[in-house]
Amino acid sequence: MFTHDTKLAFPVRVENPNPLFARMLQQAIGGVEGEVRVMMQYMFQGFGSRGPLKYRNMILSTAAEEMGHVEMLATAVALNLEGAPTKIQEELAADPIAGAVLNGHKLSDLLPRQLLSAGLAATAEDANGTPFNASHVYASGNLAADMYCNVCAESTGRVLATRLYEMTPDPGMKEMLSFLIARDTMHQQQWLAVLEELEEVLPIPADFPQEEAANKYSYAFFNQTNGEIPDDSRFLSGKSLDGHGEFSNFNAVPLGETPTLAPPAPEMHSKVMVKPEYQADGLTAPDQRVGMEEHKKNASK
Amino acid sequence: MFTHDTKLAFPVRVENPNPLFARMLQQAIGGVEGEVRVMMQYMFQGFGSRGPLKYRNMILSTAAEEMGHVEMLATAVALNLEGAPTKIQEELAADPIAGAVLNGHKLSDLLPRQLLSAGLAATAEDANGTPFNASHVYASGNLAADMYCNVCAESTGRVLATRLYEMTPDPGMKEMLSFLIARDTMHQQQWLAVLEELEEVLPIPADFPQEEAANKYSYAFFNQTNGEIPDDSRFLSGKSLDGHGEFSNFNAVPLGETPTLAPPAPEMHSKVMVKPEYQADGLTAPDQRVGMEEHKKNASK
Amino acid sequence: MFTHDTKLAFPVRVENPNPLFARMLQQAIGGVEGEVRVMMQYMFQGFGSRGPLKYRNMILSTAAEEMGHVEMLATAVALNLEGAPTKIQEELAADPIAGAVLNGHKLSDLLPRQLLSAGLAATAEDANGTPFNASHVYASGNLAADMYCNVCAESTGRVLATRLYEMTPDPGMKEMLSFLIARDTMHQQQWLAVLEELEEVLPIPADFPQEEAANKYSYAFFNQTNGEIPDDSRFLSGKSLDGHGEFSNFNAVPLGETPTLAPPAPEMHSKVMVKPEYQADGLTAPDQRVGMEEHKKNASK
Amino acid sequence: MFTHDTKLAFPVRVENPNPLFARMLQQAIGGVEGEVRVMMQYMFQGFGSRGPLKYRNMILSTAAEEMGHVEMLATAVALNLEGAPTKIQEELAADPIAGAVLNGHKLSDLLPRQLLSAGLAATAEDANGTPFNASHVYASGNLAADMYCNVCAESTGRVLATRLYEMTPDPGMKEMLSFLIARDTMHQQQWLAVLEELEEVLPIPADFPQEEAANKYSYAFFNQTNGEIPDDSRFLSGKSLDGHGEFSNFNAVPLGETPTLAPPAPEMHSKVMVKPEYQADGLTAPDQRVGMEEHKKNASK
Amino acid sequence: MFTHDTKLAFPVRVENPNPLFARMLQQAIGGVEGEVRVMMQYMFQGFGSRGPLKYRNMILSTAAEEMGHVEMLATAVALNLEGAPTKIQEELAADPIAGAVLNGHKLSDLLPRQLLSAGLAATAEDANGTPFNASHVYASGNLAADMYCNVCAESTGRVLATRLYEMTPDPGMKEMLSFLIARDTMHQQQWLAVLEELEEVLPIPADFPQEEAANKYSYAFFNQTNGEIPDDSRFLSGKSLDGHGEFSNFNAVPLGETPTLAPPAPEMHSKVMVKPEYQADGLTAPDQRVGMEEHKKNASK
Amino acid sequence: MFTHDTKLAFPVRVENPNPLFARMLQQAIGGVEGEVRVMMQYMFQGFGSRGPLKYRNMILSTAAEEMGHVEMLATAVALNLEGAPTKIQEELAADPIAGAVLNGHKLSDLLPRQLLSAGLAATAEDANGTPFNASHVYASGNLAADMYCNVCAESTGRVLATRLYEMTPDPGMKEMLSFLIARDTMHQQQWLAVLEELEEVLPIPADFPQEEAANKYSYAFFNQTNGEIPDDSRFLSGKSLDGHGEFSNFNAVPLGETPTLAPPAPEMHSKVMVKPEYQADGLTAPDQRVGMEEHKKNASK
Repeated sequence: MFTHDTKLAFPVRVENPNPLFARMLQQAIGGVEGEVRVMMQYMFQGFGSRGPLKYRNMILSTAAEEMGHVEMLATAVALNLEGAPTKIQEELAADPIAGAVLNGHKLSDLLPRQLLSAGLAATAEDANGTPFNASHVYASGNLAADMYCNVCAESTGRVLATRLYEMTPDPGMKEMLSFLIARDTMHQQQWLAVLEELEEVLPIPADFPQEEAANKYSYAFFNQTNGEIPDDSRFLSGKSLDGHGEFSNFNAVPLGETPTLAPPAPEMHSKVMVKPEYQADGLTAPDQRVGMEEHKKNASK
Repeated sequence: MFTHDTKLAFPVRVENPNPLFARMLQQAIGGVEGEVRVMMQYMFQGFGSRGPLKYRNMILSTAAEEMGHVEMLATAVALNLEGAPTKIQEELAADPIAGAVLNGHKLSDLLPRQLLSAGLAATAEDANGTPFNASHVYASGNLAADMYCNVCAESTGRVLATRLYEMTPDPGMKEMLSFLIARDTMHQQQWLAVLEELEEVLPIPADFPQEEAANKYSYAFFNQTNGEIPDDSRFLSGKSLDGHGEFSNFNAVPLGETPTLAPPAPEMHSKVMVKPEYQADGLTAPDQRVGMEEHKKNASK
Repeated sequence: MFTHDTKLAFPVRVENPNPLFARMLQQAIGGVEGEVRVMMQYMFQGFGSRGPLKYRNMILSTAAEEMGHVEMLATAVALNLEGAPTKIQEELAADPIAGAVLNGHKLSDLLPRQLLSAGLAATAEDANGTPFNASHVYASGNLAADMYCNVCAESTGRVLATRLYEMTPDPGMKEMLSFLIARDTMHQQQWLAVLEELEEVLPIPADFPQEEAANKYSYAFFNQTNGEIPDDSRFLSGKSLDGHGEFSNFNAVPLGETPTLAPPAPEMHSKVMVKPEYQADGLTAPDQRVGMEEHKKNASK
Repeated sequence: MFTHDTKLAFPVRVENPNPLFARMLQQAIGGVEGEVRVMMQYMFQGFGSRGPLKYRNMILSTAAEEMGHVEMLATAVALNLEGAPTKIQEELAADPIAGAVLNGHKLSDLLPRQLLSAGLAATAEDANGTPFNASHVYASGNLAADMYCNVCAESTGRVLATRLYEMTPDPGMKEMLSFLIARDTMHQQQWLAVLEELEEVLPIPADFPQEEAANKYSYAFFNQTNGEIPDDSRFLSGKSLDGHGEFSNFNAVPLGETPTLAPPAPEMHSKVMVKPEYQADGLTAPDQRVGMEEHKKNASK
Repeated sequence: MFTHDTKLAFPVRVENPNPLFARMLQQAIGGVEGEVRVMMQYMFQGFGSRGPLKYRNMILSTAAEEMGHVEMLATAVALNLEGAPTKIQEELAADPIAGAVLNGHKLSDLLPRQLLSAGLAATAEDANGTPFNASHVYASGNLAADMYCNVCAESTGRVLATRLYEMTPDPGMKEMLSFLIARDTMHQQQWLAVLEELEEVLPIPADFPQEEAANKYSYAFFNQTNGEIPDDSRFLSGKSLDGHGEFSNFNAVPLGETPTLAPPAPEMHSKVMVKPEYQADGLTAPDQRVGMEEHKKNASK
Repeated sequence: MFTHDTKLAFPVRVENPNPLFARMLQQAIGGVEGEVRVMMQYMFQGFGSRGPLKYRNMILSTAAEEMGHVEMLATAVALNLEGAPTKIQEELAADPIAGAVLNGHKLSDLLPRQLLSAGLAATAEDANGTPFNASHVYASGNLAADMYCNVCAESTGRVLATRLYEMTPDPGMKEMLSFLIARDTMHQQQWLAVLEELEEVLPIPADFPQEEAANKYSYAFFNQTNGEIPDDSRFLSGKSLDGHGEFSNFNAVPLGETPTLAPPAPEMHSKVMVKPEYQADGLTAPDQRVGMEEHKKNASK
């Protein structure tokens, strides 16, 4: 169960509201690197956790923290939109007078739905205006995999926060972002620290029987480019990071055959006939169409 | 530029086609843990790479490899769908005779669009039937962040592959999956090996000036739950993993104030008036509505 | 700011885990009638609220409550998936023995991603398997509009909960759903009670100047069907519900003209030429293509 | 069956085409508050209606009306795009000369796909550029729930229309919007009038047996915030709006227990082992992992 | 403007309601090959048509026809769902008694939202359960391109209809589908007939100056596979179909160079440093990072 | 299997980087008319091809070609973003000085995620900022249908490329686009040439038994508009294009009856009762609700 405190997790203030920055901040709300995503990712990781119990508690604690970050950012967006231009008239006037009246703020700088759908407030979308999509909730049930997904989220999240920090001249916004950058630092550490607590991490999942994987391909780099890659790269030679193998460099060739699919089932209405003049060889001749039974025998060889 | 070889990267054979497994395999094609995702993620990471050049080459090589995995899995789906029931009549007949005729295969086991849209072949969707959505292409430009995103993808990908391996009794499918499990092993190693080659990785991005982050919050766990978390957890005490700080356990309290937003701009038509009998206090009284200018002064304090 | 309590808002227990019901419950999590939606809708309505303040507090309190409902339902899904079949072998065996072994539980009953992506736990999706999409967060800034949107959400939500209640024979699940049905009852009341507190509600928004709407069309039913509609229907005659007009029945005819768009701009490469034999009249003749300037004059008449 | 009349439902004229307004109008076409949504919502409500028949007729009549509104708005978009800048050259020139040449119209003001995909015409998207998504078609089969969903749609729709009305200085556009505002007025009335015709509306659905809901929670506000909410609020005390209960204010506490999920099934490959030095207590010790049978007994208590 | 007639465009009757077929029919409603798609595609093509006028009229007439097809199919779904099982109890009972009671109908055969969200009626989704997405509305403004898009839609639509026809044993459903198959036949003809009326169709768009295309690549097949393709194929030799060139077979090689992107802008925080031991060559050395100005000069060479 | 060559398929150079054009180019990457779409469409058509084999080879060759086009365009985007403004400060400064400093480049011209998520590189999105959605992968299994879908894709693709060509003044970009325009020319030809090789193309699918379609409706235009359409139009009279029929002009009337659906199943909780004063006729009276059995008999007549 969750409860709410009306106070913000950290102060949010805006000295010079800026509608373009209000749009950019949306990425930190509804973007794939944003706070709605980690809030929901941690909720579902916690709710589905099948032990150890301390991780469930810890993850749900951080889920609650992220809810507060969504709140902070939504507040920041609303404050940045105060006084924003809302009329085409202002837009038309703005350019000739070179932004003097409106301080360079333009109606076109807002994310349209911030105005049209939310009345000058935050929406559950990214800076492009795409609504958050919950397929970004990674909660696999495997704690190690999930921790790496969380590091991914907090790493791209911190990269995003630093870009926003560089983008804004507003001291209030810089202060808020420096807090969020600090929290992303901690969260990166936190998820990596969990990995350090685990007995065996790699390869993920670590409990799959080694002998059932096609292990001769487990530590070989498949080279499928003509681009230069120095031989002494860490991933081309030496002991593998999980200690179970030795890296090698494999100039990839196909290990399988050209696939042969059965002809289409008649009720699929996928059958086509090639005109005789274009049937010069076995690639188009109708007798290529063997029966299903025969095909199955071939296919399963 | 890319080129195609008609041979498969690895043999794909199906001894007992099974339409339910054809559906499940879709997750490894169009799922967020699947091959279309890594194919595109590595393509965009490579195409946008601004150095070092060897990583661009290496990433695009693996992008090409993943294209071949999509091909293998799509072939596996098509083979599993051969001989699948396509008619309601069969479905109605199947249950009473307890599956004897159809070996337990049911029309309802297929992903409907495999039949209806693709004529018994793979679609670019996951096992739920949701089309792949390219917002899952994580390519931040920051190599370290991207490597963690790749480990996330290959970890959840390998977890998925082991679940599919457990699910199928078919020796051909098990062989194909054991190969994909091996390749996911290598790819986890590969991305982690890149991180080992870098001078400074954490916190990501490592080049953001430490002094501009609110560092007193960079290594503190914010405890926002009443759930028990042992004090000796790696993320509650001791040196931080990046070596820049000391973990601590912070019983989180709000550091900010209750936010105050300006009243709505009149042209938003968001204004509401509370009836006098429900205006017993300042929370609803109309004089709460201060002017925008005054509000701005307060907001920016 | 939000905090978490490890205890659930209400007991969740499952006597006979059922994977098909685990799928159906997803609708109450990630469906448009579900709890993730109201959780986020109330969060954004609260975060963007520009007064009166008591509604902000109340809405955010209920947002916190809904977070706990997501937790309850995710727990219910996880419990219903315990012991679920995970292998094709079981599926093949299940039908001939008529479900005796597996109590009628089938691998195909699960939402595939519950198993493949979440390891037998809830996902952030609906029962069809479509991920939650945050465009369903209605938070217009206009309190009256939002209250009706909330009644919509809680009405379809309660209808859903009653359908799930009818569907399950499990006493634990029935108990949980009877609680959620009760809470939806309250929430319907709650949002309607807010509307009762407001001075003027209809038409929404109530502060748009009546004289600027084309009022002669504000209370007329436009009849565009040949289907019978009794004349004494409440919406065809009598005083309008907002007290501002009188209902009438208008047999709709076009009030505008056939639109005339300018010919395509040449750089759009949209131009097509009709062969002479098909140019029998003004509808296809090339001279129909007037210049842009002339067109504009006509268009703006 | 439907038929088309080439005349528009109401005159659409544009005196000063404005590409930024062409973008904003998209919200009224493909936005969640827009006309494509209500058109489809009313179509599916009508098509699935299982009585009373007069509502089917009335709803489908209004569906037809909304089709005509899509037509009007698409025409308005096309007219606003006539003469729009289409070349980067113009964009580069526009700013230095302060918009004099192009009247402040900028290539960047358009929704890119209006130009690139539609050749300067409307698209089936909202103003952010997100395509309409039919999950917004609310048609629950329960007439009362659907009517509230319709009031929601027409309320947010009318709020949107008034914001667009305020935004444009164009008399033609204002006239069109004043018509649409009037129609939204009527439609709000219309759906509310249906609710007045029904015997019993609340709680929705009204035919669920009262005694099967956990009624002691049906009229209690669950207070989960420290924010102030006046005691005399309509939703905290007094008779409930449906007449079936008495409102109360409940300081919410968890009514359930901390959930206990079974350990992961081995074939999910979700098992992790904590290193001995981090196993100081029951929260991480391996013996926490009870067998499934034992777990089930506990879970179902 | 559009109007509605309560009568269906063609009789819809169901002799043996079948919930699995109710799911499959959804593809013809909300699938990419379905009727909602063509309805909206033709609406937007018509609304945005900039001449010749007769095509606008014709396209909007067919848009109206497709609206009626959505109505027919939604009715067919609702009829197929009558008497469908709605309770887990029935599901559990069904298998042991081998479907005798329920005629093989299973709760799991429905699209869950048909029951949960629509109360046993059609939804605006495809057979996988994915909501219709309006990005499938192809309306480019170029009539020839649009006609080919329409042939694509009606071809995949007719393929779908024949697959559904084969799938159902119900005479009423077969009759309805034979009508829809006939209409798709006509619509394929109709759009191809428009192409026959045009002066110049290929290449689309036909009004782009031939000399501005890189014409030496306009009729060459780029061979990027080792798969066999007979030399006498129509697309490898002989006059091109538009009469403007001669087909040839080009064994594709890269015509460009390895791309060189500038180093990342510092404020992107994308910079990474490779450890000295992994800097053996120019591919990773820091001096690879030239300044932006120098880079630009190189890039634009 | 696929392999990569570091060289680009064709030279990509940018003389004057322009961030607005960087946004517009996204449409050619992740738009429905773009290269990611055809790359994936051809991959899945090839992977699922059930003969003739030469088309599989040819389609996969072109799939490989399209991968290279994605690479070219992503490179073009990255080059156009070099030197782009990234700070609000620059934006504020830009307008007053009339773009002199920044050459008219504005931070707001970028697609926000190009900067925020990709660090000034391409994303897998269209120019509106909507991520690519793989439901646009048309691969029906029927070669003729697929060829028309490919012509659709390459036609709208070439229209898009010509619009981009007109939009840019940059010689490098014009050269790249003239190449892509040429390739789209070839691909249109290529897919149409396949259709010429087939014995029987129309109606698609050609192998559905003519006598099972409701053929009297197969060549009749259903006129459902009052808009003028000349009688001598190719689709109104004369032999049909497939040679199987004669076009006719049918003034459409409903051929079916008003549908009658059964009353709602009680467990759907969709029942509503109309107040007596609004029950003046059979359209709302409760006795309209016949039993399910009786209804079924009527329905199946």
